[in-house]
Amino acid sequence: MCDLLRINTNRCVMLNDGKSSFSINGQTIYHFVGTSTFSEYTVLHVGSVAKINPAAPLDKVYVLSCGISTGLGATLNVAKPKNGSTVAVFGLGAVGLAAAEGATIAGASRIIGVDLNAKRFDEATKFGVTEFVTPKDHDKPVHEVGAFLTFFDFFRCLLIWYVSLTSLFIWYVSLQGWGVAVLVGVSNKDDAFKTHPMNILNERTIKGTFFGNYKPRSDLPLVVEKYMNKELELEKFITHDVSFSEINKAFEYMLRGEGLRCIIRVDA
Amino acid sequence: MCDLLRINTNRCVMLNDGKSSFSINGQTIYHFVGTSTFSEYTVLHVGSVAKINPAAPLDKVYVLSCGISTGLGATLNVAKPKNGSTVAVFGLGAVGLAAAEGATIAGASRIIGVDLNAKRFDEATKFGVTEFVTPKDHDKPVHEVGAFLTFFDFFRCLLIWYVSLTSLFIWYVSLQGWGVAVLVGVSNKDDAFKTHPMNILNERTIKGTFFGNYKPRSDLPLVVEKYMNKELELEKFITHDVSFSEINKAFEYMLRGEGLRCIIRVDA
Repeated sequence: MCDLLRINTNRCVMLNDGKSSFSINGQTIYHFVGTSTFSEYTVLHVGSVAKINPAAPLDKVYVLSCGISTGLGATLNVAKPKNGSTVAVFGLGAVGLAAAEGATIAGASRIIGVDLNAKRFDEATKFGVTEFVTPKDHDKPVHEVGAFLTFFDFFRCLLIWYVSLTSLFIWYVSLQGWGVAVLVGVSNKDDAFKTHPMNILNERTIKGTFFGNYKPRSDLPLVVEKYMNKELELEKFITHDVSFSEINKAFEYMLRGEGLRCIIRVDA
Repeated sequence: MCDLLRINTNRCVMLNDGKSSFSINGQTIYHFVGTSTFSEYTVLHVGSVAKINPAAPLDKVYVLSCGISTGLGATLNVAKPKNGSTVAVFGLGAVGLAAAEGATIAGASRIIGVDLNAKRFDEATKFGVTEFVTPKDHDKPVHEVGAFLTFFDFFRCLLIWYVSLTSLFIWYVSLQGWGVAVLVGVSNKDDAFKTHPMNILNERTIKGTFFGNYKPRSDLPLVVEKYMNKELELEKFITHDVSFSEINKAFEYMLRGEGLRCIIRVDA
């Protein structure tokens, strides 16, 4: 976690002069989370730049820039399931599928996927998800349903990525059980994680991760190498290819729950 | 964590018949946390009984029954500091000193003790504490003081046992840093652990422990063996020896901050 750049990534201006590098028709356009990659050329703080293999195709390794690295790392660097263990992933968007992929790489024998959108399940099998739970299909709380009945007795780790992230995480931590709970993904500004301390005292392990605990400058080039060596498939994370002029289509896909795994390709 | 006995340890009656085994002058006396050890003879659920070496002196291994095991295990089984690492212990009562002893056994090179009562520090050195912080001596918050300035940059683990346990833990978790935070000790009934989810997301690891994650029936006999083999010293945890008829003296010592490490010896 970089003390210099991590604090206030939404500062919207360059760190050195406090100004934006962009304008259109004389009007300032502000930077987005320190990178401003929705442009053909950009100015970045040196701490935001990682040097990767120049042969790597940018329209594929692009997906490692945030969500996919976060999901992979959340499993491989933080939850660290052992071979043969059971993993549950809440939310089967880009991050959740990457988390499932990480669990597959780690050798998990059961990977339970949970999502409100039943359409996500077909593709999730490509990422190693073995069992599905759609809370909407049940009158009971999800932890009283099928696969989970045994899971909450014997689970080993849990990856979370959800719309109502905080409330889900509180619900989860309050349940009796062992294993590791990993919080992934930024919560709403006004959210609070609130639980009785006994829910922590009962031998819980709670972890949080930002960017999957990868150090971007030193670790990201190594993940790119894994792709180049065919140890990691990135193509399956890409469902749509949209030009910059049609960028609003991508947001439509996302809102319909189809585009969570959508990357935006910027025309050269 | 035993599902059968852990739930409602304060039930105050036997599990099998829902009744107390004690009375005085026809009036029922209820059980205390499932063991009722303030009596010469007692009736216990089999799950509350551990068979230890019969040669072990009960007036010494007594201290392993709760606090000392909790503190030792909090370090050795949960925080697991590596050789040469830095450990901070908040609160230098029985549990905190046992946590420091655990850190010493684990080979920690710096052990920072924090307590509001400066009198605790002289004895704490016997348990391996190398540096002391008394918040009362400073105008600044404790993490801006001396030893902590570097500690919060590089800390590895943290043991907590405190009167205002929950608020201390919330304060700690909100600080930037790595390592492991271990919550030890029962909070007040109405306490809440409340923090912004970002304080978890920032690569924190939060753990809680009950009885130092020892399994009482299988692990406690092994800790007793460590004492018998002189790998673990228990005598230094015992500061007073009070007969049952003078039990109120022990509570006085405790309230004065002298008796946190006091055991109650029951006259045979």
